[in-house]
This record gives sequence, C-alpha cells and structure tokens, in this order.
Amino acid sequence: MALISALTPVFVAILCVVIAFIFKTQRSSESSSAQKSSSGGGSGSEARPWVDEDLQDDTEISGRENEEDDWAVVGTEDLPHVPYAPRRYPEEEMLERSKHFYSLLNERRSVRYISPEPVPREVIDNVIRAAGTAPSGAHTEPWTFVVVADAEIKHKIREIVEEEEEINYKQRMGDKWVHDLRRLRTNWVKEYLDTAPYLILIFKQTYGPMPDGKKRTHYYNEISVSISCGLLLAALQNVGLVTVTSTPLNCGPHLRVLLRRPVNEKLLMLLPVGYPAPDATVPDLSRKELNDIMVFV
Amino acid sequence: MALISALTPVFVAILCVVIAFIFKTQRSSESSSAQKSSSGGGSGSEARPWVDEDLQDDTEISGRENEEDDWAVVGTEDLPHVPYAPRRYPEEEMLERSKHFYSLLNERRSVRYISPEPVPREVIDNVIRAAGTAPSGAHTEPWTFVVVADAEIKHKIREIVEEEEEINYKQRMGDKWVHDLRRLRTNWVKEYLDTAPYLILIFKQTYGPMPDGKKRTHYYNEISVSISCGLLLAALQNVGLVTVTSTPLNCGPHLRVLLRRPVNEKLLMLLPVGYPAPDATVPDLSRKELNDIMVFV
Repeated sequence: MALISALTPVFVAILCVVIAFIFKTQRSSESSSAQKSSSGGGSGSEARPWVDEDLQDDTEISGRENEEDDWAVVGTEDLPHVPYAPRRYPEEEMLERSKHFYSLLNERRSVRYISPEPVPREVIDNVIRAAGTAPSGAHTEPWTFVVVADAEIKHKIREIVEEEEEINYKQRMGDKWVHDLRRLRTNWVKEYLDTAPYLILIFKQTYGPMPDGKKRTHYYNEISVSISCGLLLAALQNVGLVTVTSTPLNCGPHLRVLLRRPVNEKLLMLLPVGYPAPDATVPDLSRKELNDIMVFV
Repeated sequence: MALISALTPVFVAILCVVIAFIFKTQRSSESSSAQKSSSGGGSGSEARPWVDEDLQDDTEISGRENEEDDWAVVGTEDLPHVPYAPRRYPEEEMLERSKHFYSLLNERRSVRYISPEPVPREVIDNVIRAAGTAPSGAHTEPWTFVVVADAEIKHKIREIVEEEEEINYKQRMGDKWVHDLRRLRTNWVKEYLDTAPYLILIFKQTYGPMPDGKKRTHYYNEISVSISCGLLLAALQNVGLVTVTSTPLNCGPHLRVLLRRPVNEKLLMLLPVGYPAPDATVPDLSRKELNDIMVFV
C-alpha cells in the first residue's frame, strides 16, 4: 500500500501523458481530415457530417489554391493559336443592340404557371446548344443537361421533389418562413413539374473520370455551370419560353439516381420549360436601378 | 500517507473529469466557431485558417438547410400578383430565333488581347443593366458591378493581380501546371488589365446588412451572381465586345479594399472589356457536341 501511495504521482503523470497523447492525436486527425476535405476530393463527410454528401462540393472554395485564374486550358495537347476577329458594329448600332437586348431580358420573369402545350424539340436543342457555349474553368465544359419530356418520369420527379418539399415546409423551415411564403402562394405543390412540356435538370460535373481511374477535379464547376444557366435563360427568353430557376432541396441524390447520372454529377438546378399558362401571374416586383448595382470608377 | 493512498482512485477520477471537461469545452467551442463561420459571418479563420478569409463563403453549401427551393421572394411586404403574358412567336420564328442566338453565342471566345480603343459608356451601362435582370435567391439581387475606366486604378489592379499571380506561378502551382500553361502562352503578366478600356469587377454580396444591424444571409448568392455573369457575357457578345472570365486568385481582399467595397462583398470575377486587339488570337479549341452535353428522356 505504501508502495502504491508512493507511486501516486507517477500514475498521475502517466495518465496525463496518455490523455495528452490521445488529445493530440484527435486534433491532428481532425485537422488532416479537414484538409483532405478542403483539397477537393469530395469525401469530407468525416469532417462535416451534417452536409448531405451529394450536395457537398468544396471545389469552389478550396480549389482556388491550385487554380489558374483566367480559365486557361490545361491538360490538352499543344493547341495552335488562331486569329480571332469577331463581327464589329458601328457605335450607333452597338448602342441600339445593347438597348434592345436589355429590353428583351428585362421582360423575363420567373414563371410558375406553365402551359402543357407542346414546344418544338428543335428549339430545345438550340437553347441547350447556346447554353453549351459558356466559358468554363480550363475548358472542362462541366455540364450535363437532362431534358425530360416523358410524362411518367416527370411525374416521378414531381413526387420526389414534393415529398422533400413537404418535409422542408413542415420541418426544416421555420414558421415565419412558411408564413411569408403562404402570402406569395408558394407551397410544396409543384404542379408545373407535370404540366411543363420539358423539365431541364442541370447537373454540374464535379470531377472528370480519367482513363487511369483517377479523378480530375473540375475547378469552378459551379460557377461555370451557373454561367451556362445564364445563357440558357437568355436563350429561352429570346424564343418566348418561360421557366423558373429552382434548386431542389435535398432531392439531388434521388433525382440523380432516377435519371441514372453518374456520381460525379450533382444536380445544380431544375428548370421547367414551356409557354406561360394563359392565366399566368407573377409577383409585382421591381428590379434595382442601375445606380444600385453599378459603381463607376 | 495511508489516507492519501486510499484516496488515489479519487484523485485519478477527479483528474479524469477535469481533463474530460477541458476536452469537451474545447470541442464545443470549435464546433460553435465552425457553425459561426458557416452561417456566413465570414469570420471563420479560426475554424479553417488555411482559407483566405475573404474567399471563404459557405452559404452555397450550408445555406441549403434553410432555403426555399424555387427562389420565391421573402421578407418583402405583401406583393400583388399581376398577369404575365410575354411575347409569343410562331413556331417557325422561334426556331429561327433559337438558331440565330446559338450562332451568335457560339462565336464568343475568351479573348486576352484587348484593344485600348474607347467604347461608348452607354453601351457598358446597358450590358450591366442586362446582367441585372438575372433571377436571384429570394430576389436579393446580390451583385455589385464595379466598372473601372480610370487608368491609374486599372494599373493598381494590374499590380495587385500580377503580384499574386507571380506567387501563384512560382510557388502555389505545380511545375507541370506552369509547363502546361507556358505552351498556351499564359503567364502572370496581364497586359489587358492596362489596355482594356473597362475592367468589370463583379462582387457577390454574401449577406445584406439589415436596419437593426443584423445580417440577412443571401442564399445562393454565388449561383445568382454567376447566372448574372452569363447574361453579361451574352450582352457583351451581342454588341461585338470581348472579354475573358477570370477569377483572380487571392486578390479579392486587396481589390475590395482598393475599390472601397464593404466587407459583405466578395470579388467573384474580373472581366476586362473592349474590342479585340487587331492581332488577337485564341487557342484553336472546339466545343462538345450536343449529344455530349444533353441527355433526352
């Protein structure tokens, strides 16, 4: 007993060392797993388990460390450079064209009431082609446009989206939020997912599979695909079709599986496309003035 | 001595409790600081010190939990709904318009050789107006377009960008990357930042300051601003001007301070704008075919 009591400080010291060691190991494994997630592998569920894995995509934020800034093309064979002399308009015509284009785009509104009338397929092909001209980080063109015309698949998409949306409204969103939205006649019922002749689901390719099985990270894929979506909206407006930009909450993985897209593709946006319904309405919003969005230096 | 030795297990137990408490406090302060950074305050350098504070913006990922999916408007007064009947074109004309618009956008290329010739200011106003018609999460219109025409400020921007870019090339990017880029005649010298008659710096507003001093998070601000950039690119192409979409690496904070933008604004993109230089060249790239970007269901 005397021996044990003499050794008490030793026990305590050993215990301290052991605990300090455990603590340190824990810290360093946390920081390394955090760094791993930040290096864009997309497997950071360990570090941030609260993020839906399919929604998780760190490349926008953390990829910058390795990213060339002006989106040059890498990884391709030597490319010859060719002269580029696009069409040039006289100043008066430029001004006229800039006014006209602004006026066209300014008439665009997000529309939730879409007519079931058919729309020529070739027009859809051309608006997707237009979207595909967007610039992208290192010219990776990291987009897939899934165009759904099949009534049954559209209905399955509606079921998936409404199921999640009902949970969002009833559980995930606060009372005030739901109240605010009620005034706007928005709820989880998305009739347009059945009625619109086309649903365009835009997937971002977060990485490209390489022939050797490795992954090539697509830096800035979300920005690139969103820019492409901007071109798509302009192209739709230009032909008199309407849509609403939606980012279905928590439905990405379900919809990806339904549409048989590979795991490197994540749903970014869902756009129902068609003519507006004859009785379509929109909230009476206005846009900010030029002075509120532009600063001239 | 016998008393002390009898108390050994008690000492050990107390020590364990104290250490467990310290450990737990540490963990919970970490997780609360991580949550704080994810709620958009931008002060997450503690949780993720390797991320440039100004570049850090988790709202895209973590905001989804609280986000309504179809970008309805919240927080505004009751809005009346008004009928919406945009212009409708006959099918033949739609098809013609869709072809023509695709053909216009397909001629767009990223151009790094920009002529110093002046461009009418009113044209720039109109392309920014066009960009400002983009949809945005909850109609927050979270964009600021800083248009720089002043030669001295343009030169300061060039100095900031080139300084960081030189570090990127010499230290942050791997040898292979730099080698790949050399073949493409890209390096850290960005002459266009001096020569282009305008530089458009696009800032995303990550949150909106509220009258009561609180912050209103702008969900999906990066997607919204990127869509707006897509409209800007279309508008520029439509008037015969060229640009290159760049995302200056690590320069955001410097440039934000130079341009006196508030802390809720983060630089997303920098676009030099003008006519192409007479000897402008572009890499001889092609775009993916429709079948490679579209899936029809």
